[in-house]
Amino acid sequence: MNSWGKLFRVSLWGESHGEQVGVSIDGVPAGIALCTEDFEADLARRRAGSRGTTPRSESDLPHIVSGIFEGKTTGAPLTIIFLNENTRSADYSSLKNHPRPSHADFVAQQKYNGCNDYRGGGHFSGRLTLALVAAGVVAKKILGGEVSFHTEITSIGGTTDREQFAHIIEQAIAECDSVGGVVECRIGGIGIGLGEPFFDSAESLIAHLLFSVPAIKGVEFGSGFRSAAMRGSEHNDCITNSKGTTLTNHAGGIVGGITNGNELVVRAAVKPTASIAKEQMTYNFSSGNVEPLTIKGRHDACIALRAAVVIEAAVAIALAELKQRQ
Amino acid sequence: MNSWGKLFRVSLWGESHGEQVGVSIDGVPAGIALCTEDFEADLARRRAGSRGTTPRSESDLPHIVSGIFEGKTTGAPLTIIFLNENTRSADYSSLKNHPRPSHADFVAQQKYNGCNDYRGGGHFSGRLTLALVAAGVVAKKILGGEVSFHTEITSIGGTTDREQFAHIIEQAIAECDSVGGVVECRIGGIGIGLGEPFFDSAESLIAHLLFSVPAIKGVEFGSGFRSAAMRGSEHNDCITNSKGTTLTNHAGGIVGGITNGNELVVRAAVKPTASIAKEQMTYNFSSGNVEPLTIKGRHDACIALRAAVVIEAAVAIALAELKQRQ
Amino acid sequence: MNSWGKLFRVSLWGESHGEQVGVSIDGVPAGIALCTEDFEADLARRRAGSRGTTPRSESDLPHIVSGIFEGKTTGAPLTIIFLNENTRSADYSSLKNHPRPSHADFVAQQKYNGCNDYRGGGHFSGRLTLALVAAGVVAKKILGGEVSFHTEITSIGGTTDREQFAHIIEQAIAECDSVGGVVECRIGGIGIGLGEPFFDSAESLIAHLLFSVPAIKGVEFGSGFRSAAMRGSEHNDCITNSKGTTLTNHAGGIVGGITNGNELVVRAAVKPTASIAKEQMTYNFSSGNVEPLTIKGRHDACIALRAAVVIEAAVAIALAELKQRQ
Amino acid sequence: MNSWGKLFRVSLWGESHGEQVGVSIDGVPAGIALCTEDFEADLARRRAGSRGTTPRSESDLPHIVSGIFEGKTTGAPLTIIFLNENTRSADYSSLKNHPRPSHADFVAQQKYNGCNDYRGGGHFSGRLTLALVAAGVVAKKILGGEVSFHTEITSIGGTTDREQFAHIIEQAIAECDSVGGVVECRIGGIGIGLGEPFFDSAESLIAHLLFSVPAIKGVEFGSGFRSAAMRGSEHNDCITNSKGTTLTNHAGGIVGGITNGNELVVRAAVKPTASIAKEQMTYNFSSGNVEPLTIKGRHDACIALRAAVVIEAAVAIALAELKQRQ
Repeated sequence: MNSWGKLFRVSLWGESHGEQVGVSIDGVPAGIALCTEDFEADLARRRAGSRGTTPRSESDLPHIVSGIFEGKTTGAPLTIIFLNENTRSADYSSLKNHPRPSHADFVAQQKYNGCNDYRGGGHFSGRLTLALVAAGVVAKKILGGEVSFHTEITSIGGTTDREQFAHIIEQAIAECDSVGGVVECRIGGIGIGLGEPFFDSAESLIAHLLFSVPAIKGVEFGSGFRSAAMRGSEHNDCITNSKGTTLTNHAGGIVGGITNGNELVVRAAVKPTASIAKEQMTYNFSSGNVEPLTIKGRHDACIALRAAVVIEAAVAIALAELKQRQ
Repeated sequence: MNSWGKLFRVSLWGESHGEQVGVSIDGVPAGIALCTEDFEADLARRRAGSRGTTPRSESDLPHIVSGIFEGKTTGAPLTIIFLNENTRSADYSSLKNHPRPSHADFVAQQKYNGCNDYRGGGHFSGRLTLALVAAGVVAKKILGGEVSFHTEITSIGGTTDREQFAHIIEQAIAECDSVGGVVECRIGGIGIGLGEPFFDSAESLIAHLLFSVPAIKGVEFGSGFRSAAMRGSEHNDCITNSKGTTLTNHAGGIVGGITNGNELVVRAAVKPTASIAKEQMTYNFSSGNVEPLTIKGRHDACIALRAAVVIEAAVAIALAELKQRQ
Repeated sequence: MNSWGKLFRVSLWGESHGEQVGVSIDGVPAGIALCTEDFEADLARRRAGSRGTTPRSESDLPHIVSGIFEGKTTGAPLTIIFLNENTRSADYSSLKNHPRPSHADFVAQQKYNGCNDYRGGGHFSGRLTLALVAAGVVAKKILGGEVSFHTEITSIGGTTDREQFAHIIEQAIAECDSVGGVVECRIGGIGIGLGEPFFDSAESLIAHLLFSVPAIKGVEFGSGFRSAAMRGSEHNDCITNSKGTTLTNHAGGIVGGITNGNELVVRAAVKPTASIAKEQMTYNFSSGNVEPLTIKGRHDACIALRAAVVIEAAVAIALAELKQRQ
Repeated sequence: MNSWGKLFRVSLWGESHGEQVGVSIDGVPAGIALCTEDFEADLARRRAGSRGTTPRSESDLPHIVSGIFEGKTTGAPLTIIFLNENTRSADYSSLKNHPRPSHADFVAQQKYNGCNDYRGGGHFSGRLTLALVAAGVVAKKILGGEVSFHTEITSIGGTTDREQFAHIIEQAIAECDSVGGVVECRIGGIGIGLGEPFFDSAESLIAHLLFSVPAIKGVEFGSGFRSAAMRGSEHNDCITNSKGTTLTNHAGGIVGGITNGNELVVRAAVKPTASIAKEQMTYNFSSGNVEPLTIKGRHDACIALRAAVVIEAAVAIALAELKQRQ
């Protein structure tokens, strides 16, 4: 289903090459000052990440069509739409029978009996993340000024040396290829008590949303997979005071599924962009043979760059939901 | 909230040292043959994992109290309870003011205003996973015989050399410590089309449930975090035939949030057991000082061993929910 | 929350005097032929009901902005918007401090801390029922041709004599007043087995949606409130054959919360339009006195007329949800 | 599904002639004093209603098996079970092929492919309302002392003259028949602002739960079906002060789906008990003929009497959910 949340509910719609991408957000408290300018910074971060091949150029202007009155939220559903202006559907028509490897083309065709809008990935397109970023902006408003987000790319193509990042991406572009990366999001000021033991742990809700974001294949909190290599005496975080501040933060700010007041640390593994200009072999449903495929169109060489603000938005949405429940 | 699922809904209750742990499962189709013996194998796997310190000895007999008539499910809620027989609450009373590091003690006290049942972790106890394992057995019945689960520990204490596993655990025990591990679950035969683009991707639902399981700090699918180090040309899975079989399986059987008919591969990082016999420093709320704490009681040196079947159960529950939605 | 349904999920937004009213429908199966013309008949029924004072003139053209490709549903969210073209906000500004009796003005102001869009009722406006009617059209497509709806006004102003209806309404108009009515919806062909004992009985879901429709104050099934006056021997419906056909239908097609294959019969009591041109006394928040209020603007003398197709839509949505669950 | 509520979630299980009937309640705040004695009064009201034929004698002792520690709720799921002690399954076996008119026997058999537990109505039994009453007690604790419930039978067998009630029931008993009634529940002190415009109006949630209760065929608020016979000038409730107190209460305390601070008034029509000792004609699935049926067993002549406290509980549960959302 394309909606999520009990008390801060986000519903998405739209297709890459359709008329619009939109989001309706239910559960926004009344009285929050909100205008289209509030969305600019995060939408710009999403756009700016675009690097590599020629990017699709869209103005990405948010249009608030309900839920605002005299500059403030009304408590009624807040709906934001983005028009699709720069679509070139001709680019994609040949892919109908020759599904792109590691793309949703094949499964979508199977699941929707061939009726899915395949142009540019249709509803599976990364363009839908525009709506997530918009919802993330609203979520951050609900979380309030005391909650801070710090999101960054911590590795690209296997290296954590930031000075290498640009070089690795350029190399991938030069070879008509793409490259993956890891995004880390650290959140301060969220306080103690968000999340529940079964089944809505803070980790569960955050991971649920993160794994909805296209291209994400792993999620970890605190020391994450490195925890599995540790001893308990090494991993346990010593509590140092009555506020629950810990000496280390291997837990990433969550124990027993509940935030413990320390910095929340979550990392997401972003796979390399599936669409690459390099020729690939894959099955052609009309010929019945494995044949070379060359994907045209406009794609990102390292989607992790643009995914960073989307990941931050997904985390913010999960936290807004948890805050509303408290 | 302590229930999960739209069409295959699992509701849990109970505390480590309370009267019982139970689960009520709604959405079980009528007519499935089910008896207490069906639970034995998985419950035994959960028990058998117990290694290290003296285990709490419980018979773990499932008692089906509703939803069965003449040996078959009726379509009404299926409720299974496990009595707690071997509780030693005295072991835990001293921990009230001296919360265990990396345990839920502190956050639970804060969240529930000091009213939580702290004995043995109360509702946060790993004992609640008994109910998950039972629900997993029912989930597998719904998935049917064509779906196969293969679950194993792929690393302990940082090594993937299975011959070392026993040794690493023994060492941890000898040093009154614990050790983490990684559990991999591979599922065959689930077919194409489970999961949805936003927000209920197959990965989202599986990760949601896995992160509800105590001690899990990371979840990845297919190549997971290794994907982030790859090039697209390396990571993309070439489709080889009309059934969607791929040459490689970096996607772990899920693309665009939807199962693609290949083996589903998910891994979970299990942190080292937080309860260790070794002395630890942590804050004492009554004295206001950081003081040494020695945890008594009975604990597992490597909780990953027992977590394996719990992880498998969580995956099965998520897949049963997705199957019911189809 | 402004969304409803687990598997056929309808999310609404918009305000009476905002830019648009919209609905996004999730869970629509792929491959259903659908075009804007499909909405015409039901939208016309909603418009045609308008009688009494000068009606607000709106074209009410549905605009499908997502979920359709090449004339068929895609399985992705189906979103339909209606632009508000003929708004006269000036009509309503004086009501801010002088809330209309039996309108949402007062509660909305209290609930949303004075931030609600009060113009024309804002999000509480009957204009939102446009979205419900649109969703109802889609719901009927899902139910299929074998399911038939027969909806009619069975009483107005207390009389069941249809020949009196027009006269009663004219009288109310002449006296600047309004009048209530009862709408009956009979549905054939829905089959056996929709609904569940606790808590999602067919009656529960239908009533849930009907009581979301503005102005509805009562819902009954089959003999409804008359059942309370009956003997069991009179009320019980004798089963006459293996298909479950009953001799009488006091149950209105639902027993034990589950459809029994007979005609489903539901009635809704629609209160008289709260907005009347006749002077009324009510509290003025700025003066602190109970003062006369004369409501300007354009209103229906008997909202039951327009409510009929809305009620039918609400029932269709509930049944589509239940059918998807089966 | 057998659970209801987002933030105050009630999950039921059990069968009339099974081992137990139970309820697990999630979302109960920590720190509420609660003991088995708290349930006595409402459980006694449910028992006391039993009149007519020999009642099934059950002790109906609530057994709290989780969620309580040192006399207070812990914030973890609160689970209460009732053992079935006095079951006589032999009474019902003959009904398998000869379904009782206006009972769930026929639809249950169809829906669950003949696997349902048919003994005494199985999961459809009124015995399940024990669990609802228990949940209602907890709901009232959450609502707090300022909220008062006043529930009474306002008509039986069509008369509103209370002095006739006993006589009407005795007559029905004498004729081996049953009789219906109307229950009115008035709730004071719930304040302004509970409920939402679409789709979770206060009326929607209350009606949803009421129509889950067996035998309820109609629900109305305030003037309800009588509203449909009124003029707007007659029905509109004049606001008299800044607290929103109205001169009349035709709205029954809810406008625009939201409580307005006045007394909440809801009425439910309870059909006559379907099980009557009088001979009835109905289809016999084994013979293929319509044949006389005489129902043995123990039944209430006027189930409305016992339904009163169940109706009150259902309303309390709906209001607790709405209060938790606020």
